[in-house]
Amino acid sequence: MHPTLRTVADAAGVSIQTVSNILNAPHKVQRDTRDRVKAEILRQGYRPNRSARSLRQRRSGLLGFCVPRVGAGGSGVDDQFVHAVTGAAERAGYHVLLFTEEGEPAMGAYDALLGQRAVDGFILSSTTADDPRHEWLVGRRVPFASFGRRWADPEIGSWVDIDGAAGVALAVDHLAMRGHHRVAFIGWPAGSGVGDDRLSGFERSATANGMTVTDIERGENSHDTGARLARRLLDQPERPTAIVCVSDTMAVGCDSALRSAGMIPGHDVAITGFDDSVVASVPAVSLTTVRQPLPLAGDHVVRLLVAQLVEPAATIERVLLEPTLVVRASTSSTATPITSHLSDERKRQ
Amino acid sequence: MHPTLRTVADAAGVSIQTVSNILNAPHKVQRDTRDRVKAEILRQGYRPNRSARSLRQRRSGLLGFCVPRVGAGGSGVDDQFVHAVTGAAERAGYHVLLFTEEGEPAMGAYDALLGQRAVDGFILSSTTADDPRHEWLVGRRVPFASFGRRWADPEIGSWVDIDGAAGVALAVDHLAMRGHHRVAFIGWPAGSGVGDDRLSGFERSATANGMTVTDIERGENSHDTGARLARRLLDQPERPTAIVCVSDTMAVGCDSALRSAGMIPGHDVAITGFDDSVVASVPAVSLTTVRQPLPLAGDHVVRLLVAQLVEPAATIERVLLEPTLVVRASTSSTATPITSHLSDERKRQ
Repeated sequence: MHPTLRTVADAAGVSIQTVSNILNAPHKVQRDTRDRVKAEILRQGYRPNRSARSLRQRRSGLLGFCVPRVGAGGSGVDDQFVHAVTGAAERAGYHVLLFTEEGEPAMGAYDALLGQRAVDGFILSSTTADDPRHEWLVGRRVPFASFGRRWADPEIGSWVDIDGAAGVALAVDHLAMRGHHRVAFIGWPAGSGVGDDRLSGFERSATANGMTVTDIERGENSHDTGARLARRLLDQPERPTAIVCVSDTMAVGCDSALRSAGMIPGHDVAITGFDDSVVASVPAVSLTTVRQPLPLAGDHVVRLLVAQLVEPAATIERVLLEPTLVVRASTSSTATPITSHLSDERKRQ
Repeated sequence: MHPTLRTVADAAGVSIQTVSNILNAPHKVQRDTRDRVKAEILRQGYRPNRSARSLRQRRSGLLGFCVPRVGAGGSGVDDQFVHAVTGAAERAGYHVLLFTEEGEPAMGAYDALLGQRAVDGFILSSTTADDPRHEWLVGRRVPFASFGRRWADPEIGSWVDIDGAAGVALAVDHLAMRGHHRVAFIGWPAGSGVGDDRLSGFERSATANGMTVTDIERGENSHDTGARLARRLLDQPERPTAIVCVSDTMAVGCDSALRSAGMIPGHDVAITGFDDSVVASVPAVSLTTVRQPLPLAGDHVVRLLVAQLVEPAATIERVLLEPTLVVRASTSSTATPITSHLSDERKRQ
């Protein structure tokens, strides 16, 4: 038989109310009674029923987390973040309730969970530039913390984000150290927030290093687009010696375009990506890329949400984390004039 | 103000008990009262508090799901399964509660969730050959459904699995159609259940197609091991024309070993993988592989668990799903005698 408030109370010779007090307001109970009942609780292995505790404390102990959509990528990046969030929540005494956003209306899933008091707050991820969720939640005074800024209004709510501009700047600085002078960028369409941020890091660092930016190409995130944009960069009279990509997915497309053109990435033209996804470490690709501290981001996003649950007047906090560069074969050799179209021309003269 | 049992009761001019009856035992209430109160529930948008309902119904509405460990792989396969399980649970009226298995003792996390009545049952994944969880849960009469058989006792509990032997047989049949006669296998160490199952499909189909098995190599799942075992296969006097791998991870290592030896996978030696992970579709790899129907597996595993929750005497059910073959460049050309070491010898004679 499962231990309950009643079995503990009966064995300890006290009332159910006394056991409840010891759990919720121990200062109300005399020390000797308290010690006796606590020993009995331990002996029976009694644990409060979660639903009863939820009703009493007006909290569910659950953090709502919408499962990221399964993208064309499936980069394994989401795996890492979900795992980090689940572990951090447990260490703070919470569990994660997963839900999907499929179906209409837009905020329907959030509304339904709140209506049932099924969660105490939300962790947002896969945020978009003009994400509708932040304002909706702020308007209802629902605690939340976001992994990723809402770029259209970066002052809204608590968030944790990775400094994408700093990450791309690391890649460009590394290329400068390897002697590259002419660089190009393959990015996402303007307006994505995250993509614009990464591009700004490219421009900032290229300028600081006195490099020539041969071109900036933009398109949707896919292998095919990465390959198409890389071919366009390689077809120009002034070819770059290094191509900086906004994502590993784009970089992998770029890698295949180079190989199809008979070039060896890292030898003829350098490539960098962003994400350190599984494909970056594939030996046939071996991509220099920017790694995001996802476990740390998971810890912080849970901390920012729990702070609001414990103390409703908690200050809104923003955390910007620094990524690191992982160097692989795609930037292995130093840039030499011979890889440049212009230099070839000069040599022939 | 949030609608409650009381606001509905007051507006409809009935008692709280009457509203509660309409929600839980509507046959007890006269039709006209029932209609009036239901209209008021709709008008106010009242939804029962989840914790109150949980206490009343002795169910949490939550399915416990341990987040898969973040492996060296991070193949994106887990992403797809987690997403499928979450969606299927919602369609059945449940949510998924995520937890981790970190820390001791082994079943501690399961025990704690049950003790708090935090979940109604469990979905197991990442099952091992002698997984301790199945017997522990059966012994406590806890409903569960497993993605993956417990190979040491495949009769225990409800499970959904992918027919790995059939998947590898598809790959071998495809190689036979392309004219391959000499095949080798790169597998996992004996005893993993899943790996042994896949190997059995290789042996069955190779025999049925009258092929010569040049060798079977085994090792831990990694790029490096795949590359090392592939080199061993290629060093032998009778070289295979095709290498069948137990996983995409092994196949990617095999791919890099071939390229390092100056061979083109799919041209000089064919390679097949298993998983259709993200790396398989990378253009530089372009791997023929076996795709698992993960969304379907997610649907079934939730269905098997919910069946036990709705009807405790529900029959234990086992579902074996058929995978499919995805053909890419790594098996693009037909086997020709010239790729064979023995044939080379004969030509020289």
